[in-house]
Amino acid sequence: MVNYMVYGHNLNFDSIDYENVISRSIKFIHDYRIKLDRDGLLLGLSGGLDSAVIAKLCVMAEGKENVKALILPEKDSGKKNISDAVDYAKELGIKYKKINITPFVKKFGLYRSFFLNNLPLLRSQRNNLMEKLNNKFEKKTGVSPFESGLCGIRSDKYANFLKKANAYFRVKHRIRMLLLYKYAELENRMVVGAANKTEKMIGFFVKHGCDHATDIMPILGLYKAQVKILAQRLHLPQKFTQKDPSPDIMPGMTDEKLIGMEYDLLDRILYLIEKEEKTESISSQLDCDIKKVSLVNSLVNKSHHMREVYDLKY
Amino acid sequence: MVNYMVYGHNLNFDSIDYENVISRSIKFIHDYRIKLDRDGLLLGLSGGLDSAVIAKLCVMAEGKENVKALILPEKDSGKKNISDAVDYAKELGIKYKKINITPFVKKFGLYRSFFLNNLPLLRSQRNNLMEKLNNKFEKKTGVSPFESGLCGIRSDKYANFLKKANAYFRVKHRIRMLLLYKYAELENRMVVGAANKTEKMIGFFVKHGCDHATDIMPILGLYKAQVKILAQRLHLPQKFTQKDPSPDIMPGMTDEKLIGMEYDLLDRILYLIEKEEKTESISSQLDCDIKKVSLVNSLVNKSHHMREVYDLKY
Repeated sequence: MVNYMVYGHNLNFDSIDYENVISRSIKFIHDYRIKLDRDGLLLGLSGGLDSAVIAKLCVMAEGKENVKALILPEKDSGKKNISDAVDYAKELGIKYKKINITPFVKKFGLYRSFFLNNLPLLRSQRNNLMEKLNNKFEKKTGVSPFESGLCGIRSDKYANFLKKANAYFRVKHRIRMLLLYKYAELENRMVVGAANKTEKMIGFFVKHGCDHATDIMPILGLYKAQVKILAQRLHLPQKFTQKDPSPDIMPGMTDEKLIGMEYDLLDRILYLIEKEEKTESISSQLDCDIKKVSLVNSLVNKSHHMREVYDLKY
Repeated sequence: MVNYMVYGHNLNFDSIDYENVISRSIKFIHDYRIKLDRDGLLLGLSGGLDSAVIAKLCVMAEGKENVKALILPEKDSGKKNISDAVDYAKELGIKYKKINITPFVKKFGLYRSFFLNNLPLLRSQRNNLMEKLNNKFEKKTGVSPFESGLCGIRSDKYANFLKKANAYFRVKHRIRMLLLYKYAELENRMVVGAANKTEKMIGFFVKHGCDHATDIMPILGLYKAQVKILAQRLHLPQKFTQKDPSPDIMPGMTDEKLIGMEYDLLDRILYLIEKEEKTESISSQLDCDIKKVSLVNSLVNKSHHMREVYDLKY
C-alpha cells in the first residue's frame, strides 16, 4: 500500500513505488468502469503529457479495443500536438476521432471577443503581442493574468480585455467536455479525465471544462513531477516528457510562463503547503524567494471555488 | 440556528422556520458574491418553481440591479414556461436575455439522434408516442427510462434508442451551462444554481449541466416540498407553485411521470433514507408499497457517480 507520506518523502518524487501506482491506477479504472456499467472508455487526447499517460493506463486497464480518444483541436492548437495525439492513438491501436472545435467556438460568439482574433497577424506575431501584453498587465496590476482570472475580475483598465479573453479561452474546454459526453452517452463509455494534483491545487484548469467535468480522474492524486516520472515508467514516447507543458491555447504559451514559476519548484511548494508548513519555513527549506511561496498560496486560495460548488447546508 | 433535525421533524416540512431559511439564504448568496469577488449574479430562469425561488432570493440578497437572468428555451420548451420566465424577470425588475438554444443543439449534431425529431408529428402526438414508448420500455425492462439512464446503458433492444435520447436531452442543459458561463465571465457575475436536495439525491439532473455545474447552490439543502413552501413564504406568483414540476423537455412530460412517483412520497422516503432507516421500516412508517422504497434506494445508488467525480487517492 502506497501512502501519501511515502510519496513526498524528502520531496524526492523519484522514490515512489511507481509499479504500485500503475497497478492501482489500472484497478481503479477497471473497477469504476464496472461500477458505472459502461461498455468502454473515452478520453480527450491533446498531444500533451497527461492525456497520453491516461490513454496508456486506459489501454492497460481495459484493452485497446475498449478505448476511444477524441482529438479536439482548435485553430490555435499546435500542429505538432495534434499530430502527436494522432500518432499516439495509432501507436496504441485505439479508436480515435478528430473534430475541429473552431466552428463551435464561433457558434458561441466568442471569437471576436478576443481582440487578437480580429487582427491580421502571423502566429509568431500574435504570440509576441500576447506575451508583451501579459507582462504589461502584470507590471501594472502586480498579478499575472492567470492569477487575476482565478477569482473575480473587477473594473480596472485591463478588466474588460481579461474578461473577454477568459470567456473565449474557457469556452473551448467546455465545448470539449460537451463533445466528450456526447460520444460517451451515444456509446455508453466512461469519460476518463487527465487532471493532475498540481493543476487542481492552483486552479490551472477550466471550471466545468474537460479537465474538470469528467467521470473519473486517475492521476488527480499525483503532482506534475510524478506524472512525468510515471510516463517514463510507462515507456511513453520521449516526445511527451520532453515537450514543455502547455495549455495549447496559443503557440509558444507554456504553463510555466502563465503560472510564473517552474513546475519543479511549484510542486515542492505545494507539497509543503499540504503539510501545513508556514510560508517562511517553506521559503527557507526550499531556499527560494518568499514571494514565490506567497504566490502559490494566493493561487491555492483564489482557486478554492473552482474545486467546490458551494451549497448552503442545514 | 436551524438544524437538519428540525427541518424534517415528524416529516412535517411545514414546521420549519422559513424566515430563518430566507435570511440564511440571502446571507449565503451575498457572502459568496463577495468571496468570489463578482460584480453581480447570473441565473438561468426556466419558468419553473426552483429557478423562480432563486431569482427572488438573488434580488433580496443583492438588489434587482445586480441580478441578471438568462432565459434559454429550446424548440420543445413549453410556451407558457417561457412567458412565465419573462414575466417574472419583468416583475422582479431584473435584466434578462432570451436565447433560443435550438441552433446550438443542432450544431452538436444531436437533433436527428432522437427519432421523434425526424417524424412529422404534432406536439400532442409526439407526447403521446413518447409516453407509450416509456411505458413499453418499463414493462419490458422492469425499470423506467429515467432509472435506466442514470448509470450505464447496456446492449438490449431499447439501448440504442435510449442512448441517443439521453445524449440529445442532456446536451441541452450543458449548452445552457456554457451560455451561463459565457455571460458570467464577460460580465464578472457569479452563477447561481437552482438544484434542490430531492433532485440531487435521486440524480434527477444532468451531470455537468446547468443544474449541476454552477458556482453556488442556495437551495440544495431543501427537499422539493420545502422549496414549494419557501416559494409561498417568498410570495411568489401562485402559478409557480401550482404548475406540475417538469424538466420541460417535451410538452406534458412531468417530473413525477418520469421518476414514477409523487414528490410528496419521494421526499418522505428520501428523508428516512438519509436517517439510515431500513427499507421495511420506511415502508411501514409511511404505509407505502415496499417497491416504492426500493425504487428510491435504487435511484440514490445508481446516481452516486453523478454527485462525485471519482479520483484515485494516495
